[in-house]
Amino acid sequence: MRAAVLHGPGDIRCEDVPEPKILFPTDAIIKLSATCICGSDLWPYRGLQDLSGPMHMGHEYCGIVVEAGAEVRTVRPGQFVVGSFCISDNTCPHCRFGFQSSCVHREFMSGAQAPYARVPLADGTLVAASETPSDDLVPHLLATSDVLGTGWYAADAADVREGSTVVVVGDGAVGLMGVLAAKEMGAERTIAMSRHESRQDLARGYGATDIVAERGDEGVALVLELTKGVGADSVLECVGTPESMAQALACARPGGTVGYVGVPHGVALDGRQLFYGQKRMLGGPAPVRRFLPDLMDRVLKGKIKPGKVFDLELPLAEVAEGYRAMDERRAIKALLKV
Amino acid sequence: MRAAVLHGPGDIRCEDVPEPKILFPTDAIIKLSATCICGSDLWPYRGLQDLSGPMHMGHEYCGIVVEAGAEVRTVRPGQFVVGSFCISDNTCPHCRFGFQSSCVHREFMSGAQAPYARVPLADGTLVAASETPSDDLVPHLLATSDVLGTGWYAADAADVREGSTVVVVGDGAVGLMGVLAAKEMGAERTIAMSRHESRQDLARGYGATDIVAERGDEGVALVLELTKGVGADSVLECVGTPESMAQALACARPGGTVGYVGVPHGVALDGRQLFYGQKRMLGGPAPVRRFLPDLMDRVLKGKIKPGKVFDLELPLAEVAEGYRAMDERRAIKALLKV
Repeated sequence: MRAAVLHGPGDIRCEDVPEPKILFPTDAIIKLSATCICGSDLWPYRGLQDLSGPMHMGHEYCGIVVEAGAEVRTVRPGQFVVGSFCISDNTCPHCRFGFQSSCVHREFMSGAQAPYARVPLADGTLVAASETPSDDLVPHLLATSDVLGTGWYAADAADVREGSTVVVVGDGAVGLMGVLAAKEMGAERTIAMSRHESRQDLARGYGATDIVAERGDEGVALVLELTKGVGADSVLECVGTPESMAQALACARPGGTVGYVGVPHGVALDGRQLFYGQKRMLGGPAPVRRFLPDLMDRVLKGKIKPGKVFDLELPLAEVAEGYRAMDERRAIKALLKV
Repeated sequence: MRAAVLHGPGDIRCEDVPEPKILFPTDAIIKLSATCICGSDLWPYRGLQDLSGPMHMGHEYCGIVVEAGAEVRTVRPGQFVVGSFCISDNTCPHCRFGFQSSCVHREFMSGAQAPYARVPLADGTLVAASETPSDDLVPHLLATSDVLGTGWYAADAADVREGSTVVVVGDGAVGLMGVLAAKEMGAERTIAMSRHESRQDLARGYGATDIVAERGDEGVALVLELTKGVGADSVLECVGTPESMAQALACARPGGTVGYVGVPHGVALDGRQLFYGQKRMLGGPAPVRRFLPDLMDRVLKGKIKPGKVFDLELPLAEVAEGYRAMDERRAIKALLKV
């Protein structure tokens, strides 16, 4: 089969690779219905993350089970499934505590920018839909696998609840999903920090009540102005740079919470500053598996349309153009048809 | 009157100072029933915090109101009161959110190691007891002013609840109060990390179910062993050093919470490590005012005896010996009779 392989910075190719096979009796093989490119795929693409060799890319996926290992119990061939980008057994104490992204058997999914993929620990990782969804629902279901699940976790970690005032730092796909999640969780006010008109529009569509285009101190001052000097109850940090983290912390009120899902790059926090700032913090790779049944249900019932973050659709063969478009911020997120 | 004044590292004197006066119509003057020395008083005593001049010490207090400013409404002369070490108006948005220690009018109390003290913003800071307590209750009520309130906040920030597994890092007075708080909040298991026999005994008395005398990696390994490899739901960090914070983070399970109340000295946190560790964190100066009515009530009803942390009692004139004893860890906490 032909799949996306990253050979070095900027060098992503669609090339022949062996078809995946069941390696363990707990594996399943799925035929992808669609896949996509993640913001985090850009770190190695940009040379900001070391490669030990050619890397088979892709960790967001949904599709039809074509083969299940002998020990797989909860999904079977023919079923439409979505899985988390974090592989988990969903039975260990960390999973049962709702932190499947810290499962004792955690692996990170890879190789999903392909027609077929192997999913380890299928029982703990995959969730089957009650029926095969229509094609128009596929992008929305695909989004639950990571980008929506991650934005949702940011809002959950940031303790968004009925009536909250929320700030979302970052207008990438995850930030936009954070806006959607905040609205679904009952936020009264959601301030999206975004400089790009198309993303501002999408943020408004997903429920942002205010847009702040400024960044840094100026952006923080505007957020404080909008919140009568108080700051936000909940802040979703969806970038991962020192600047975005500082901005997020400064936008939260004392006793407020920062949920951070942007993988930190160069972020260092001063203990005393955190102490006197008195901001609650929780971050990490999203335990998407916790949210997946609920998120799939919301999509299948037509309540949410997270797939609108896909503003570019390409055949898998043109994966290189997808990476380029996202790298140059011409596209928010590229869906790949397989 | 004679009160405690710090002139430089190691140089604390009981000397003549002017009696406090009402400076603002929101002030009250109290006659102290007792006062005490805080672990945080040792930072400047040890020369680890700069002094701009002689410093009138003391921020833990309870006593009888002797004068109230013209605008004071909620307390009146003759009443027995306890106040937080954080002065607050208790009406601003941060106070109403439960974070009185981030009040827009926040000041830190000082000058309470004295027979009389001025309490600013008396309405927002002081809580009156329904009647004047008997002498034997005074040490327990005094403890609610800071040390118990701070340990209580550590447990609250660490999200201790019915059935929780809790680790307390630090066997100072605040850590011991954290053990008490965890028990009151329904912790099923409380592991106190302590190397000192007398403190271990007190911790057990306050509800610790396990004692771990080891520190660092060895201590963490024992906590993991005691928790079947999972880690604690809640960890109370009651020291404030890089080592104690690292120990606290390592003892918490993924998705668990660290409540940190030790004022950080030299603590720096790596963003990526926090991210992948997936620990929730909340710290800061304790919003004691939030807890004060409840804590005073528990003391007055005889439910808790936090004053047992005072293992040394001295007349105020001998304040220097109190500082020495705590500095040398001969005493956990010294009560000063005024």
